[in-house]
Amino acid sequence: MAFQLAPEQLESGAPVYLQIAGAIRAQVENGVLASGEKLPTIRALAERLDVNRDTVAAAYEALAAEGVVDAQVGRGTFVRGLRTRPRASGPVVISLSRHAERLLELERARVGYGAGRGAIPLHALKPDPRHFPLDSFRRSLARVLQDVGAELLTYGDQQGYLGLREVLAERLRTHGILVGPESIVLCQGASQGIALSLRLFADADAAIAVEEPTYPNALAAIAGLGLTPVPVPMRGSGADLAALDRALARPDVRAFYTIPTFHNPLGITTPLEHRKEVLALAAHHGKAVIEDAYEMDLRYAGRPVPTLAGLDEDGIVVQLLSFSKSLFPGVRAGAVVARGRHVDALLALRHASDLGGALPLQAALADFMRSGAYDRHLAAQRKRLRARRDALLESLARELPEGATWTTPEGGLQLWLELPEPLDSRDVHADALREGVLVAPGFQFQCDGRPSRGLRLSIGQSDEDAIREAVRRLGKVVRERLAAEPTQGGRASIQV
Amino acid sequence: MAFQLAPEQLESGAPVYLQIAGAIRAQVENGVLASGEKLPTIRALAERLDVNRDTVAAAYEALAAEGVVDAQVGRGTFVRGLRTRPRASGPVVISLSRHAERLLELERARVGYGAGRGAIPLHALKPDPRHFPLDSFRRSLARVLQDVGAELLTYGDQQGYLGLREVLAERLRTHGILVGPESIVLCQGASQGIALSLRLFADADAAIAVEEPTYPNALAAIAGLGLTPVPVPMRGSGADLAALDRALARPDVRAFYTIPTFHNPLGITTPLEHRKEVLALAAHHGKAVIEDAYEMDLRYAGRPVPTLAGLDEDGIVVQLLSFSKSLFPGVRAGAVVARGRHVDALLALRHASDLGGALPLQAALADFMRSGAYDRHLAAQRKRLRARRDALLESLARELPEGATWTTPEGGLQLWLELPEPLDSRDVHADALREGVLVAPGFQFQCDGRPSRGLRLSIGQSDEDAIREAVRRLGKVVRERLAAEPTQGGRASIQV
Repeated sequence: MAFQLAPEQLESGAPVYLQIAGAIRAQVENGVLASGEKLPTIRALAERLDVNRDTVAAAYEALAAEGVVDAQVGRGTFVRGLRTRPRASGPVVISLSRHAERLLELERARVGYGAGRGAIPLHALKPDPRHFPLDSFRRSLARVLQDVGAELLTYGDQQGYLGLREVLAERLRTHGILVGPESIVLCQGASQGIALSLRLFADADAAIAVEEPTYPNALAAIAGLGLTPVPVPMRGSGADLAALDRALARPDVRAFYTIPTFHNPLGITTPLEHRKEVLALAAHHGKAVIEDAYEMDLRYAGRPVPTLAGLDEDGIVVQLLSFSKSLFPGVRAGAVVARGRHVDALLALRHASDLGGALPLQAALADFMRSGAYDRHLAAQRKRLRARRDALLESLARELPEGATWTTPEGGLQLWLELPEPLDSRDVHADALREGVLVAPGFQFQCDGRPSRGLRLSIGQSDEDAIREAVRRLGKVVRERLAAEPTQGGRASIQV
Repeated sequence: MAFQLAPEQLESGAPVYLQIAGAIRAQVENGVLASGEKLPTIRALAERLDVNRDTVAAAYEALAAEGVVDAQVGRGTFVRGLRTRPRASGPVVISLSRHAERLLELERARVGYGAGRGAIPLHALKPDPRHFPLDSFRRSLARVLQDVGAELLTYGDQQGYLGLREVLAERLRTHGILVGPESIVLCQGASQGIALSLRLFADADAAIAVEEPTYPNALAAIAGLGLTPVPVPMRGSGADLAALDRALARPDVRAFYTIPTFHNPLGITTPLEHRKEVLALAAHHGKAVIEDAYEMDLRYAGRPVPTLAGLDEDGIVVQLLSFSKSLFPGVRAGAVVARGRHVDALLALRHASDLGGALPLQAALADFMRSGAYDRHLAAQRKRLRARRDALLESLARELPEGATWTTPEGGLQLWLELPEPLDSRDVHADALREGVLVAPGFQFQCDGRPSRGLRLSIGQSDEDAIREAVRRLGKVVRERLAAEPTQGGRASIQV
């Protein structure tokens, strides 16, 4: 069918050249204009439509840019079909980024716990769903949706719900951390806080000093951002300070990621003196400290040690808070506590990441805390965790053979069991799985995944009876493995 | 006070050397041992405690590593105070990452709308809170917390709540996108989807082809990850294909970020032919396409055009969905639709970013959709938006002087107004603000923030009357600006 276009076919509003291009495009799409058909000359169409020639020329140019027509010099402008481009003969493969490939590698190296259905879970740092304060939280959620309403369904405050930041600031003050709500950026659990604070200080190809062993998801966040972890071995009750000194002296190291309270996976708490040394070293080298305080609210024994953020006089500490262990992960509320420009930059990073978190849950958490329900829940949780820890310690002393050692946590969900030489955590994990017990093998807490004699044991999801039974089976597994090993007379002396 | 340590002071469980170190550390912290005091020799303490000398040596080493004691060769081991380290005399300054600094720059360059309290808002792509279906969503939320319960408060499925992924897959199939729930990764709005899919394909220092003008937060996400945007100018009804060809041919360009439906900020929808060309070009160059379909559900006129994901035969498209515009931002639910390994890698990236989203809200959204409430809401929204768009188009035709042109969107919240030469969007924005009207000036949608004659006008938050009044004031501002300009006789011919 021949080309047709009259002035009355043009709509108003859009620039005229776009109107012309649009009308022609529509005719191509409808099949009114077939592939290969010649369009009128620019002059002819300009006259017919009573517009400037430049306008028609612009329309044809736009159509050519879109691939709808071909302008052939000296011949005219022709409708064409879909451009056929040379393509690889095989399937098109879009390569992933190096960082994404690295993360997939880390995923593959992770222990699969999937086969452990029905096994006693001592592997995961998750609170027990049987103790979730579901009803009172639900009431808080209903209350804030009723009282605050539609405001909670907007993008809201980029920094997170002010009411929650206010409650958190009050609580932090009781821990000696003197900040206001303006120093707190809410995020999705401490995990997002880790990613944001890494990006706050480090560009890709920089490095981050980390305790070793440490939290595997921190290692994943580091790898996923193209950063390199620089391990600082844990010795005694904290990171080896000489090694930390060396690590922080490296120009590519931008920050130290540390879990001073109820360390993951060790379960230990670093002493005050050590904390002061860490801060002095970081200040000396002008490097940031990222303090992961994810289990801070779960102390059930001993006396609190001032946090790094509380001791920080130089504004070099960024502190991460979480409610995933002390309340439940589904609240998806955590916080980054920072100072000055660090807050502005965290907000910009957050904005460029996901435009902010779930305000209804943040507001519900604020209500839940103000109502006293959180403190009641904490009191009950601490009591339960204390009883579980005691059951675990007693069982370990009873069931584990000589040569096994373990830490004595004063809070949180986990302790660290070091198996006797020459056992390996991977083997014992596999054996225990067969006996119906899930434990977290130590190699996954190393930067390079090298073998480890350690196992992380969690009291989060099992009660005292289950813990006793699990440790009984674990003890059996360990003794059997030891008995099966060739005698290792010479190796005992290697152990300090 | 003299050093005291007896075997009965050691606890059981921990490795003996740590028990010894712990007991000594406690005495230092309690002040029982003063700074400068000498500890017993290794031999003496080993005898007193009836342990191996190596064990005491290990304890002293651990204490030295922590900074609690000093081992002085030939003299012995001494308690010491906090190490005094040479420090910079001024305050400690922790430098931010280059990416964070770049984001802060972008933030500073953003237009501040804060002075616009009480002004008619035509600037923001946000739905109108007066039309949030608050009550029915609240009922959905209460229902799922009642029916599903504690499971929604766990970490849950890393990929996001299965029930929501199932509903989304069903809806996508009606759009010709044949995927199952296993191809969908839920995230926090399309914004997190942008950041995740950028990281899926591009490492820092790579580049991303983007339409220009484009969504400013996509530019922020690109900058925040250390990536470089490569602008492809929008011409006629889509990106200039020759320029896109050149951009995708660059080895450092890893993907093309595009908003083909209800483009932000232009409001246009690219035609089918153009979409096929985009896919052919991307397949030819082996580059990914990130299709931002954030307003897909908001078509109120014209016929739907197949999405890039629906047309994709090579698995090169990653599609982003959002409910922030069609429902409300506070639901914080969006999705990335991908294929094969891309899904695995997105999950790993998500895991390393924040361990997943808010399950209660995801489950509530699934219930809300299944109940029919979402479709009822959409029907009402589309009707309202259509009326608002018509009011806007009529007002523009009536109030704007010759030389102004604008787009005619078939859905979504925004259209693009191009001011007559020689006006600049920044000036007109400022003038309009003084007249009580907020508009989004075009320079912020450019990669380099260079001047623009464009304004993005949003119908999201203002009803017809407000829109008419706002455009009346805007028309006045534009005419006054034009009248104040020196005559630009020669410049009109520059305009095509």
